[in-house]
Amino acid sequence: MIQKMVIDEIKLECGDTLRQVEVAFETSGTLNEEKTNAILVCHALTGDACAVGDEEQPGWWEGLIGPGRYIDTNKYFVVTSNVLGGCSGTTGPASLNPETGRPYGADFPVVTIRDMVQLQYLMVKRLGIDKLFAVVGGSMGGMQAYEWAVMYPEMMHLVLPIATSARLSAIAIAYNDVGRQAILSDPEWKRGHYYPGKGPVNGLSIARMLGMITYRTADLFEYRFGRRLKDERDVTQFDSTFNIESYLRYQGQKLVERFDANSYLYLLKAMDSHDIGRGRGGIKAALERIQARVLSIAISNDLLYPADHQEEVVEMLKASHKEVEYHFVESIYGHDGFLVEFVKIGPLVEQFIEKYNTGIFKQSAASR
Amino acid sequence: MIQKMVIDEIKLECGDTLRQVEVAFETSGTLNEEKTNAILVCHALTGDACAVGDEEQPGWWEGLIGPGRYIDTNKYFVVTSNVLGGCSGTTGPASLNPETGRPYGADFPVVTIRDMVQLQYLMVKRLGIDKLFAVVGGSMGGMQAYEWAVMYPEMMHLVLPIATSARLSAIAIAYNDVGRQAILSDPEWKRGHYYPGKGPVNGLSIARMLGMITYRTADLFEYRFGRRLKDERDVTQFDSTFNIESYLRYQGQKLVERFDANSYLYLLKAMDSHDIGRGRGGIKAALERIQARVLSIAISNDLLYPADHQEEVVEMLKASHKEVEYHFVESIYGHDGFLVEFVKIGPLVEQFIEKYNTGIFKQSAASR
Repeated sequence: MIQKMVIDEIKLECGDTLRQVEVAFETSGTLNEEKTNAILVCHALTGDACAVGDEEQPGWWEGLIGPGRYIDTNKYFVVTSNVLGGCSGTTGPASLNPETGRPYGADFPVVTIRDMVQLQYLMVKRLGIDKLFAVVGGSMGGMQAYEWAVMYPEMMHLVLPIATSARLSAIAIAYNDVGRQAILSDPEWKRGHYYPGKGPVNGLSIARMLGMITYRTADLFEYRFGRRLKDERDVTQFDSTFNIESYLRYQGQKLVERFDANSYLYLLKAMDSHDIGRGRGGIKAALERIQARVLSIAISNDLLYPADHQEEVVEMLKASHKEVEYHFVESIYGHDGFLVEFVKIGPLVEQFIEKYNTGIFKQSAASR
Repeated sequence: MIQKMVIDEIKLECGDTLRQVEVAFETSGTLNEEKTNAILVCHALTGDACAVGDEEQPGWWEGLIGPGRYIDTNKYFVVTSNVLGGCSGTTGPASLNPETGRPYGADFPVVTIRDMVQLQYLMVKRLGIDKLFAVVGGSMGGMQAYEWAVMYPEMMHLVLPIATSARLSAIAIAYNDVGRQAILSDPEWKRGHYYPGKGPVNGLSIARMLGMITYRTADLFEYRFGRRLKDERDVTQFDSTFNIESYLRYQGQKLVERFDANSYLYLLKAMDSHDIGRGRGGIKAALERIQARVLSIAISNDLLYPADHQEEVVEMLKASHKEVEYHFVESIYGHDGFLVEFVKIGPLVEQFIEKYNTGIFKQSAASR
């Protein structure tokens, strides 16, 4: 169930302060009396607070989290919030600016992964939780997980960054900029002040098409679509369409119906700025701060967050004598594996959290 | 030096006929008396007839071809033409339609790689050449090389397809469609009738930015640009720019100055339709027709034309008892390696053509 809370103010990295910040969040399971069984889930670029969901609307990680699932909501209290700058309940560029009564649009301040994490921290404290059992996230959610462990090292026992990295790679910045330019050059963007209009739907749709390519792999597209044509049209006709094209265009259209283009721009920027070493003397120095045990999972053929970047971080953690476990998961899905390969990722997550569970909190009688 | 000829008419695969077709072509070296030393070079998507060039304007393959180079213009007569549908001298959508006196725009018929090759064939015959010594091409040029060997098997001794494939992969079709949508959704495209206006420069620029990413590799971008910022701006400022972004935007702007967006659309479509097996009972059956000896070169980390596709074709050629030589070239450049890695590719090309040279034509006294 999605709930809301309002955080009075938050000071951002860029120097601005946001006031009356709404946070949409989902909770699943029951917080135990000692408040020691909470797991925070962080979402990816176009995700939202609905990680677990219900029968009517299953969440994006319902294959991983739920009653009797790998992260068992009969045991754990799972909290997911929509990120700062998002468009699914938490304050973002489409929200009303309390100072003007109009949507922020492009006047919304730049937000970073660190700002997102800070808002989550304020939410977690408001929920009366002093220490999380674990922080879990994939992709942009994994960036938040890393930042959590660095910013609030005493706030969690375990951290599980999946299909992510400690800093965004150059090629991911490059792909992001193509999507960004598609939105910015759409005349309907109107310098970010398009509300209540539909906004730059063409630009956002193109950005999503490109996103979908980078989230998957050449092998998957070859296997699933190959060179098959829609409607068996002759390929020498200009309006002939390959199934892969039709699939991507559909994905673009689908996102436009549920996502705000300005939010997309702000979240791309937040991803671009992600570097846990920024302003902290580099990645290795930042990693030194971590106290949580780390489970790092990389996926094969991840175009955006290549395994070798994750392995680099794991090596640094080991060199600093941190407790870290690393797994490389083979998947034809590539990056999107973190949203699909529950059978491969789930047991790794479950074993990791259950290994440390007994020592950290007692199961409540009710959930036993 | 770029010359021009006019071909009276050409019947296209789509069923249309184009009349008074202009062909821009470059020749380097001297055609020998027996007319047996001609090498045809085929260009890639945004290439042109200027493969060799001169000191003032070096061609895009001047590292490979020239006096004393790997393909030695003291020995060989090298011909390169701008492709049908292009915008650098050969008839394309920006050309005047002789029937209306206005530019074709989107009324230009769909052209295929086979149509391009047919036009080149008519040009080669007009030059009085009955059999080429070799046909060479990379990327879209390699598609033409494969088609040459299948369509006119008796017209060449050697064929050298580089960083290409016998059919376009699903992921390459996918990337092409993102570029296409960027152009089509630019309001300046005006359904293809934007002449004499500048046309959809934003859309074309975005398409080029994406192209540049796919032509190179994550490792190259990481090494060359990493996360370095232009002007040392703080990344938490909205207008901060990474060097990789600035580079891509510059590449986009540069292409817009020299390339027609409609041509880009038509050539993307031609690439999409490329499948030497189309209408011929499959790739293996098409390859059966080849009489030329084949040198196939693949480049590591080629996102668009993965080595395993090329190896598949080589295996089929071997199974059909064709003479084929295959090389896998390691390059941090990925696909663009065919335009850069002359030191690696050049000797392979030189050895292959020189091996068969003596048996096929005698060197003229003048060039000895």
